[in-house]
Amino acid sequence: MAVGIKVFAPASVANVACGYDVLGFALEEPGDEIVITKVDKKGLRITKITGGKLPYDPLKNTAGFAALKVLEHLEYDGGLEMEIHKKMPFGSGLGSSAASAVAGAMAVNEVLNKPLTKQELLPFAVLGEQIADGAYHADNVAPSLLGGMVLIRDTQTLDFHKVYIPDGLYVVVIHPHIEILTKDSRGILKTEVSLADHIKQSANLAGLMLGMQNSNFELIKNSLEDIIIEPQRAHLIPHFYDIKNAALTNGALGCSISGAGPSIFALCDSTIIAENVAIQMEKVLLDQKISCTIYKSRINNEGAILC
Amino acid sequence: MAVGIKVFAPASVANVACGYDVLGFALEEPGDEIVITKVDKKGLRITKITGGKLPYDPLKNTAGFAALKVLEHLEYDGGLEMEIHKKMPFGSGLGSSAASAVAGAMAVNEVLNKPLTKQELLPFAVLGEQIADGAYHADNVAPSLLGGMVLIRDTQTLDFHKVYIPDGLYVVVIHPHIEILTKDSRGILKTEVSLADHIKQSANLAGLMLGMQNSNFELIKNSLEDIIIEPQRAHLIPHFYDIKNAALTNGALGCSISGAGPSIFALCDSTIIAENVAIQMEKVLLDQKISCTIYKSRINNEGAILC
Repeated sequence: MAVGIKVFAPASVANVACGYDVLGFALEEPGDEIVITKVDKKGLRITKITGGKLPYDPLKNTAGFAALKVLEHLEYDGGLEMEIHKKMPFGSGLGSSAASAVAGAMAVNEVLNKPLTKQELLPFAVLGEQIADGAYHADNVAPSLLGGMVLIRDTQTLDFHKVYIPDGLYVVVIHPHIEILTKDSRGILKTEVSLADHIKQSANLAGLMLGMQNSNFELIKNSLEDIIIEPQRAHLIPHFYDIKNAALTNGALGCSISGAGPSIFALCDSTIIAENVAIQMEKVLLDQKISCTIYKSRINNEGAILC
Repeated sequence: MAVGIKVFAPASVANVACGYDVLGFALEEPGDEIVITKVDKKGLRITKITGGKLPYDPLKNTAGFAALKVLEHLEYDGGLEMEIHKKMPFGSGLGSSAASAVAGAMAVNEVLNKPLTKQELLPFAVLGEQIADGAYHADNVAPSLLGGMVLIRDTQTLDFHKVYIPDGLYVVVIHPHIEILTKDSRGILKTEVSLADHIKQSANLAGLMLGMQNSNFELIKNSLEDIIIEPQRAHLIPHFYDIKNAALTNGALGCSISGAGPSIFALCDSTIIAENVAIQMEKVLLDQKISCTIYKSRINNEGAILC
């Protein structure tokens, strides 16, 4: 019997306060695993799914669809079997569907001996994720695939740029065990922004870029503010402002909603601060009898990997 | 008779395509000169103004007001006489009033043996410019004073950050001899921006920051686009799109309105391209019998100087 190869694609934080739809970074964990095996019978089949209820039809499955798009591009007509092991929650705001799409695209490329570079896989993974939430955006897919913090300067052409990650930067992510659907979370956003808010928010995004490039933690801290999206979505997450306040008063550089929520991320400039910030954020939820999962790590600079 | 000291403050390009109200850079020329002399008679008097019609009352004069604010801060009660030599056009979109305000603040600081740093002079120069156009913004004043390309991350706190200037970057500025009042040019802007345009424009500003920091000319080129302000102001400048087209088709990285216009700037990645871009931009205006002045230089990294 043929032995499969296994890939891992990590969760990611999109939006990153002032970078709605254009900025994201990868986490060390959680993430999705996909095992893929060459078989004689032609076509791609999903044979096993663990960790969540997802369609077995590759055309309706983010990982399957991304994989099919890669195979179509490569004009590969052999047989493949795919196992999907969801090791992260759905609807968490941590790029669950993006991780699956990335793992799907990456897995078929690996099993075919890497005909494509990671960068070349990006459009196929983006198409895979689109199956899940209908939107064409790359701010989860790009960091999950490529690692690091990634600016998507132009979504249509997928013109992306990795941002330098200063030494000492740590991420805390808290996932409250409640569900928000990304589609709902997008639907509530106003389609207009005041010119004044646009100016302020874009200056903060520019400041964040300079802060990261120059390892200027004070500038990162001052720039990590979202005056446009966060105020519209905060009410969807119980006790959001209490959690944010706990992060900021305990030394986090910034704290905002991860993706469309309900996960919340905080950036910190040391592990010691990150440890305490995590405890204090968690405490707010535990006091309210809401369970949660905490993830703490550096920004994952590698992205998806062959296990 | 006491001998005066002379300072020069340069013109500047604000807005810089995707950086409305938050980004500007300094030019080598033109600029304003101010001569200041200690005298026995107490108080600050403007004794001579050349190159333009401006109020002699320091309280109503941008240079005078900025100087008064510095003197007030320093609790200086001696006598000073100021000559203002406007060596650049009013209403050109090149930060004429900002240059005067910077020169005024800088001149009194120099004649008093530099009690303040340039950075400490910034708020006083901003107050001086405010006399001219009523708006509190620093995207001309900061580069004119400090030199380079400057991001004003927060106007209220004047939190500014210099952006790295790649070797080989050249500026062409064309000033068509027509007048637009900044107040009019501000008045026509819509107060709302679509969320989609906000996303695109802020991603371009972020891209421009990364492009400058990493000397990535292709990224600078792709990021130098203004989809919000330029389309609303272009009609105020005769033949704007023809001039822009001449710049872009001849190899400019980008081209947009300088400040509130009517001046137009182009950024280029070599002197040879800049020379040709200048000729081609000028040709469009000359064919229409509109006279103009052209300025070509690197970005001025020094800002205001003692002559």
